[in-house]
Amino acid sequence: MILIVSVVMLLLEAGRSSSSSASGLENQIFQYIDLHQNEFIKILKEWVAVESDSVQPRLTQEVTRMMEIAAARLQALGATVELAQLGTSQLPDGQSLLLPPLILAELGKDPQKPTVCFYGHLDVQPAKKEDGWETDPYTLTESDGNLYGRGASDNKGPVLAWINAVETFKALKLDMPVNFKFIIEGLEEVGSPGLEKLIKDKNQLFFSDVDYIVISDNLWLSNRKPALTYGTRGSICFFVEVQGGERDLHSGTFGGIIHEPITDLIALLDSLVDISGRILIPGIYDDVSILTEEEKKLYESVEFDVEGHKNISGVKKFLYDNKEEILMNMWRYPSLSIHGIEGAFHEPGIKTVIPIRVIGKFSIRLVPHMNISIVEHQVKQYLEDIFSKRSSPNKLMVSVPLSAVPWLADINNTLYTAAKGAIKTVFGQDPDMIRDGSTIPIARMFQNITKKSVMMFPIGDADAGEHSQNEKISRSNYFQGTKLFATFFLEIAKLHEQLQEASTMKTTN
Amino acid sequence: MILIVSVVMLLLEAGRSSSSSASGLENQIFQYIDLHQNEFIKILKEWVAVESDSVQPRLTQEVTRMMEIAAARLQALGATVELAQLGTSQLPDGQSLLLPPLILAELGKDPQKPTVCFYGHLDVQPAKKEDGWETDPYTLTESDGNLYGRGASDNKGPVLAWINAVETFKALKLDMPVNFKFIIEGLEEVGSPGLEKLIKDKNQLFFSDVDYIVISDNLWLSNRKPALTYGTRGSICFFVEVQGGERDLHSGTFGGIIHEPITDLIALLDSLVDISGRILIPGIYDDVSILTEEEKKLYESVEFDVEGHKNISGVKKFLYDNKEEILMNMWRYPSLSIHGIEGAFHEPGIKTVIPIRVIGKFSIRLVPHMNISIVEHQVKQYLEDIFSKRSSPNKLMVSVPLSAVPWLADINNTLYTAAKGAIKTVFGQDPDMIRDGSTIPIARMFQNITKKSVMMFPIGDADAGEHSQNEKISRSNYFQGTKLFATFFLEIAKLHEQLQEASTMKTTN
Repeated sequence: MILIVSVVMLLLEAGRSSSSSASGLENQIFQYIDLHQNEFIKILKEWVAVESDSVQPRLTQEVTRMMEIAAARLQALGATVELAQLGTSQLPDGQSLLLPPLILAELGKDPQKPTVCFYGHLDVQPAKKEDGWETDPYTLTESDGNLYGRGASDNKGPVLAWINAVETFKALKLDMPVNFKFIIEGLEEVGSPGLEKLIKDKNQLFFSDVDYIVISDNLWLSNRKPALTYGTRGSICFFVEVQGGERDLHSGTFGGIIHEPITDLIALLDSLVDISGRILIPGIYDDVSILTEEEKKLYESVEFDVEGHKNISGVKKFLYDNKEEILMNMWRYPSLSIHGIEGAFHEPGIKTVIPIRVIGKFSIRLVPHMNISIVEHQVKQYLEDIFSKRSSPNKLMVSVPLSAVPWLADINNTLYTAAKGAIKTVFGQDPDMIRDGSTIPIARMFQNITKKSVMMFPIGDADAGEHSQNEKISRSNYFQGTKLFATFFLEIAKLHEQLQEASTMKTTN
Repeated sequence: MILIVSVVMLLLEAGRSSSSSASGLENQIFQYIDLHQNEFIKILKEWVAVESDSVQPRLTQEVTRMMEIAAARLQALGATVELAQLGTSQLPDGQSLLLPPLILAELGKDPQKPTVCFYGHLDVQPAKKEDGWETDPYTLTESDGNLYGRGASDNKGPVLAWINAVETFKALKLDMPVNFKFIIEGLEEVGSPGLEKLIKDKNQLFFSDVDYIVISDNLWLSNRKPALTYGTRGSICFFVEVQGGERDLHSGTFGGIIHEPITDLIALLDSLVDISGRILIPGIYDDVSILTEEEKKLYESVEFDVEGHKNISGVKKFLYDNKEEILMNMWRYPSLSIHGIEGAFHEPGIKTVIPIRVIGKFSIRLVPHMNISIVEHQVKQYLEDIFSKRSSPNKLMVSVPLSAVPWLADINNTLYTAAKGAIKTVFGQDPDMIRDGSTIPIARMFQNITKKSVMMFPIGDADAGEHSQNEKISRSNYFQGTKLFATFFLEIAKLHEQLQEASTMKTTN
């Protein structure tokens, strides 16, 4: 087994080094992409022009229209397309609304080739010129090398870059290096209702012959250096309820004679983290994976602008000064944040109330290999211990309304090796290997349900302004991204073939 | 001086004991009141029928009509009545609304007699049958010895009891024992806008010849035992703002690398009171008046149902077990209550936000002889010390949006002695000498501006249901209250005369 792995690694390395400069085939592809920039921009412009805002129910029709346009485009490439219905949702006014369909598409079924499934979404966040856009958000506008428009980066641009890459092979009448599958949704911006169920339902059919899953719905860490994302933190949210009676009391009439529930709650919340941000719950760090030398090196090579990140946050000083510590505490160590209190006075001004039932809310970001049940037990035990020491007559109730496990991929597997090779070819450098400190459920959801290799494969623009005004994709990233995906197809096909050969070697030996 | 005071005390004691059973004059008055119960109820019914709800601007006309009805009643008694205009207020829709006028009335100007000014209000809290009233709130309805209706206790009943008492003297063609002044407003339930300014404006004219001010707008502590209120706590409210940047951050992206402002705030709030409710701010108790043996005895004799009070609060266990400690901590010791946090997440559900600017809100109830400026300085100093030890890069700002000094009357002065005497005559027992833990500005406002003796003189019904459904005054308290006020007029006249004689003795000696 060890021998086989070494052989595979060797083959992978060989495959990778061979693509460190573009081949003739690659150059042919790049040339085609460069020559057809105007067409690719025209399509992006057409797609951005559709106000496929999934947040506002009145625009659902536009999301559906967007899905139909994309379906037609995939069909034109020769793909088999299914528009999967997700049912209806209930509006606040009681009316039910037909949800926009989700695209499931397939192109190619050659058992000799790997099958790569691409996930993307074509719905967008709301945008209005009056929000502070310098140009009309639904009219793609080029300025200073950037293409401005809602959805340019999130996520119409990357979806089109992938489709354009596929189209390039077709236009050049090249053999498709891989079989393609597409899962493209129209409800990402509202939390992807129905997606998890659909993946589960389709796991035995649609996903059974998928080898790799690629998501391109995030960003590089810097504007200059390509990145691959291999992990996201999980989270566990806690409600800490302290109740003292049935109704709020007047602090004049009862202040000084009762155990105020909020005093208990504040003491509990104050026991969670110390001044340095360290979580005080006993045992909480026990299962955090140990930092290996290999992982440590990843942080050293990441291009990360600490001052720039401070500027984005608006915060003057971080808890750590050096880049590595900051990255590790964002990505690979747990953190605890207190979000607020429900049931207390929260408005401007003053109300001299003794709130009688208060719910403190905090969450812990989870990292490998923390276990949700263990953390839940540790936190509950700790809070109950502290509370019991107060001898308060109030009632404590700790609950977990929401939790999600972290996601971590093996960055030495074929998928990541292929992407690194493609990046080296197109950008002439190695990517930043990054994680995301927040809890993005999509990668984890695909990995947990399908058990396939999953990679988040962004194509650029750390300053894309997703969800914000003046969202954009740079012209360069749109086309370099298209080249990157095309190169990746070749790379993964080659590595996959080598892998299969190695596997055959093992069988025949 | 000491001699004179002793003489006065002796005279006051003599005056008091002489009224421990009703005189012939008093019996004549009581008989009249008993015989005219139906008329007095009829008037209360008419007054309750006016929906003089000052909370809803659309009913302002009804408040004005109520003021005019009361003005006419006082004029019928021979009083000179001024309807003082309070100007206009701005409605949320931008329209301006003419505020209901305030009654300033005078009856009698005999320089030999003391002048007693009565304060009351004729506006009421909103009430609708659908709120859970068993009877129509604006139709005074008698049941089981109680008169149910909005304003029956708060405050139309007590205002009428006073006016009925005056009317009784007039009807019986008795010499008025005192000169009367009335200040009756229609905006008490909305915070008495304009009242403080009016008292200041009228201080040199209307109030210059007033000797005593009586307010009858609160309740006894029990349903059985009469009470006199001689103090209220003050309060000082604090805003503790901790700011870390310009905008809220995502706890996934920034959790673990920044000093979260709410963590600082929670630590500050947690440093304010200990488990037993004791305020931890150094020096805060230094100026709290020392408990004298005389004051201690007052608490022992107060009739206070600890279990009943627990039931009202809905709280299972108080910080103290015995009556005296509970009362002292409600009335004569400071307390600190945390009200809530502005700027943090406060809704149901979960939002994994790092709030970047949070404002903790708490208040301290002040008691004699705490000084607002000193307390403000102590609290600010303490919070700044604790904050500086955290070495947080966040910004702390502590401010005081609101403060009010406590009110305490001298219970040995003529006003209280007269009221105690009247209570002994009418109810055959000594009153509970009580305070209020909350900050009722009215008594303090009168005392501070006019420098006159002020007394809060309730006529009953601990279970009156003020501001609640099924508000009522018991039939018995309405008429006993009328008798009490009439007796009080005689009592204060007598004591005032004795005081003046003592004063003359001093001058002639």
